[in-house]
Amino acid sequence: MSPVIGIDLGGSKIALGLVDARDRIVARRRIDTDSEAGLKSVIERIAAEVEALGATRPARQAIEAVGIGAPGPVDPVSGDLLTLVNLPGISNTPFRRALQERLALPVALDHDAKVAALGEFHFGAGRERESMIYIVIGTGVGAAIIYQGRLIYGERNSAGESGHMTVDPNGPRCHCGSRGCLETYASGPALARHYAAATCETISGAEVAKRALAGDGTARDVLASAGRALGIAIASLAMTLNIEQFVIGGGVAQAGDLLLGPARASLKRYSFKAVSARVRVSASAMGQDAPILGAAWLARRKRIERA
Amino acid sequence: MSPVIGIDLGGSKIALGLVDARDRIVARRRIDTDSEAGLKSVIERIAAEVEALGATRPARQAIEAVGIGAPGPVDPVSGDLLTLVNLPGISNTPFRRALQERLALPVALDHDAKVAALGEFHFGAGRERESMIYIVIGTGVGAAIIYQGRLIYGERNSAGESGHMTVDPNGPRCHCGSRGCLETYASGPALARHYAAATCETISGAEVAKRALAGDGTARDVLASAGRALGIAIASLAMTLNIEQFVIGGGVAQAGDLLLGPARASLKRYSFKAVSARVRVSASAMGQDAPILGAAWLARRKRIERA
Repeated sequence: MSPVIGIDLGGSKIALGLVDARDRIVARRRIDTDSEAGLKSVIERIAAEVEALGATRPARQAIEAVGIGAPGPVDPVSGDLLTLVNLPGISNTPFRRALQERLALPVALDHDAKVAALGEFHFGAGRERESMIYIVIGTGVGAAIIYQGRLIYGERNSAGESGHMTVDPNGPRCHCGSRGCLETYASGPALARHYAAATCETISGAEVAKRALAGDGTARDVLASAGRALGIAIASLAMTLNIEQFVIGGGVAQAGDLLLGPARASLKRYSFKAVSARVRVSASAMGQDAPILGAAWLARRKRIERA
Repeated sequence: MSPVIGIDLGGSKIALGLVDARDRIVARRRIDTDSEAGLKSVIERIAAEVEALGATRPARQAIEAVGIGAPGPVDPVSGDLLTLVNLPGISNTPFRRALQERLALPVALDHDAKVAALGEFHFGAGRERESMIYIVIGTGVGAAIIYQGRLIYGERNSAGESGHMTVDPNGPRCHCGSRGCLETYASGPALARHYAAATCETISGAEVAKRALAGDGTARDVLASAGRALGIAIASLAMTLNIEQFVIGGGVAQAGDLLLGPARASLKRYSFKAVSARVRVSASAMGQDAPILGAAWLARRKRIERA
């Protein structure tokens, strides 16, 4: 098999990886996202990076395909993009098709949480499993459910909004209009907000995780409270779907057991013993490589489907 | 197609229906369950009813197969029964195989919530849908998820324990050991308990529903509170799975909008507008016929798979 390119298209950066036939990232590029740029400009900037990566490949091995994880929903029929809050310049444009035409290569596109989940499922913490739920903690909290090897998309392609599962019906107001959503406890901004409320110091959620690792007691309390909320949601998902592997991704997951310990305790408290005894809650094994490897996997699969 | 027999095997009664090639119940039988009876006795009693129903079929149309919904988990490999709390006499026996041998007919067996969900999905409130979540309110609260036409079983066949989704982490203790499970608000015994707490009168959950329909204000309050809890769970399921049809079954569902109105209001409060606007929460359309028709459907499908 020839190499493919996996791309993690984010609101602030674009990370690309050249992935060889053995699913190893053998070369990387990383540029800042110009979030206001229009379709043509984004396409040209990505094309330049794809070509630069292509130049690093072994001779006589053509790039087969390109896969991309995007920070928003993807139209299930066209495979093109829908509303991208963080990338208004290419929101509602036929991004995938335009990039495919420019590169003259097959381009596969999916929602970033799903793409990262594919990376963890095929190469990381879910490698031995048939089913897995990936929960990513970032600006929001999203989920991707893989059941018997296949992603669940839902009826309108919008499955995975588990960040808005109700963890406490009397909890704090969420920006979505509801109350006590998981996201009000466990997103990056929620961690920052809870930390600021306790210390009057404003730092990012990822920084809260770093300080917790360095021993900051307040940061640890904030992470523990996020973990408890996460565990309640995991318990409800495990009871409903009987899926036994959960993988937590996103920068905050680097806090490891400071987040996952309280999550496991809460899972145990809010589910059957027979369930909590079998459910594994793991930190992402692939970190920032998960979306690149997942996108590469997607690119290869689409290529195979087409062949 | 020849007729099949669908059986709803419950803790207190066994209901059987002869189902013709056009999926109509053309003859019925109903006997009390002897819950302490052993395997041989249960098999013989069911066989007698199957034979009685068989005698009512049109001449020259042999019964093709038998399908059964059972009140507990079914072993996914053997298709036989696992622990049946309400039927200790046949718990952990090779019930399906024994009945199949006795009848000399193919016997298909599945968990009752899943079988009733199949009935609603193919013939009732989910007839026009590709995906559906059935929630049955009885002694407990169970769910069955049909996604793109197929039941979700989970990794150990125990998906659907949505009665133990956490609706309020500070809610009342549940018999499962957790707190604030949906079941503590919405099961039959929970309705009875909440009604008794307000009136000092002990009646069944189904009777609470009847009194609510007759205008009893306390009964209506109890149902509304159950509906609110149900709506929170529905909201979390809809956000996670993006399934848009929910069907509520079990005797209490006969209260209709007295239960489902508050559930819909709560769904609206605890999910995205775009989600609640599309999700339909319907009462079971088939009522007590759902498990019989679902079991008949299962019998026919197994027969086809074997052919």
